Amino acid sequence: MLAFDVFGTVVDWRSGVMAEMSAVARERGLAVGAGAVADAWRRRYQPFLDRVRRGEAPWQVLDELHRAGLYEVVGEFDLQALIEADLDRLVLAWHHLPPWPDAVRGLTRLRSGFVLATLSNGGMALLVDLARSAGLPFDCILSTELVKSYKPDPRTYQLVPSLLAVRPDQAMMVAAHPYDLAAAAEQGMRTAFVRRAQEWGTGKAEVPTFPVDLMAEDFVDLASQLGA
Amino acid sequence: MLAFDVFGTVVDWRSGVMAEMSAVARERGLAVGAGAVADAWRRRYQPFLDRVRRGEAPWQVLDELHRAGLYEVVGEFDLQALIEADLDRLVLAWHHLPPWPDAVRGLTRLRSGFVLATLSNGGMALLVDLARSAGLPFDCILSTELVKSYKPDPRTYQLVPSLLAVRPDQAMMVAAHPYDLAAAAEQGMRTAFVRRAQEWGTGKAEVPTFPVDLMAEDFVDLASQLGA
Repeated sequence: MLAFDVFGTVVDWRSGVMAEMSAVARERGLAVGAGAVADAWRRRYQPFLDRVRRGEAPWQVLDELHRAGLYEVVGEFDLQALIEADLDRLVLAWHHLPPWPDAVRGLTRLRSGFVLATLSNGGMALLVDLARSAGLPFDCILSTELVKSYKPDPRTYQLVPSLLAVRPDQAMMVAAHPYDLAAAAEQGMRTAFVRRAQEWGTGKAEVPTFPVDLMAEDFVDLASQLGA
Repeated sequence: MLAFDVFGTVVDWRSGVMAEMSAVARERGLAVGAGAVADAWRRRYQPFLDRVRRGEAPWQVLDELHRAGLYEVVGEFDLQALIEADLDRLVLAWHHLPPWPDAVRGLTRLRSGFVLATLSNGGMALLVDLARSAGLPFDCILSTELVKSYKPDPRTYQLVPSLLAVRPDQAMMVAAHPYDLAAAAEQGMRTAFVRRAQEWGTGKAEVPTFPVDLMAEDFVDLASQLGA
């Protein structure tokens, strides 16, 4: 079976957040660099998650951490003209991000041969919304919310063999982020790196510096390599 | 959103188990009344679950309880000619039961208007297999395994608002079994009873003796009543 990271791996968070930010800013008459705002928001992601993972902050679902990060971004970029309803919209933008162009086609092929699950830091409700809006054919939505922690906590990866009744080495983690694959490998999972060079709009992907089982250009390539 | 009981409500466990039992018995040269065996096996279901729910037995996923029940059935029906691999096949039959004839069509219509989740005593792996083999278009697989208990434990119903970010009264439990709906209503969920008169092959369904929000003949009728 295949377990997928979602933000950046399956969906293009940057384009989705930029689009919503641009729309909101236009309505409020604000001039913002939507890409810079999206990047700044996303950069707050890991530090916020780390605090929860280390037990320095209580468990909060990703929407709440997104909102806390957004308050900081509002200060940094002088976006105080945004009202609460705008912030709601921006937090909700993460529930309906666009898939990468190959994602639906690749997943559809992969599903014919493998059980497909998410394994994402997004909450269950967020992931359900995302899968519905992007038409992602997952068999099963798994969120780190099920253990009230965040990747790369080992317990999050252990959800996969535990709930899907496979040995760890019968599960392959698919992600665009080396840290995610390294942590999955430590739990005995196999690993597939997918190059998402446009995740940060730079054309450059951070590639693994350790051996992975597969390197793929996108999900269609992954399907071909896996014979699906 | 709609949360579905699965065995008896979405899939026809009796026909599926009978078919596998007949096939296995034929291969072993055994004459069995497959319907009687299936019914006897299923009747052991609630007592086994009750013991786990009351803490008198440790947590075990449904497959393990199915296997324990099957050992008793083997004794009762003198099926000692069955080998372990046969018992494996019979336990696994619950992973690929046939859907009721209206199920896929009804769910497909309902999904256009509602988030569809399972809420079943089946384990996550079982439910994923079942949804794949029957082509059931659920958005999300929820199993009582996520709280290591069984319905009608209140905590199992609380999974729905907790994980899907809805108020209990924004969730409707869909089931062919009054006890399931009564327990869901106690947790503030809305309720839809679906008449599955052939669940036990008798033509008679046990109907609720308390008010439910909807009574439906099948999932297509449910979709019509819900305007989907």
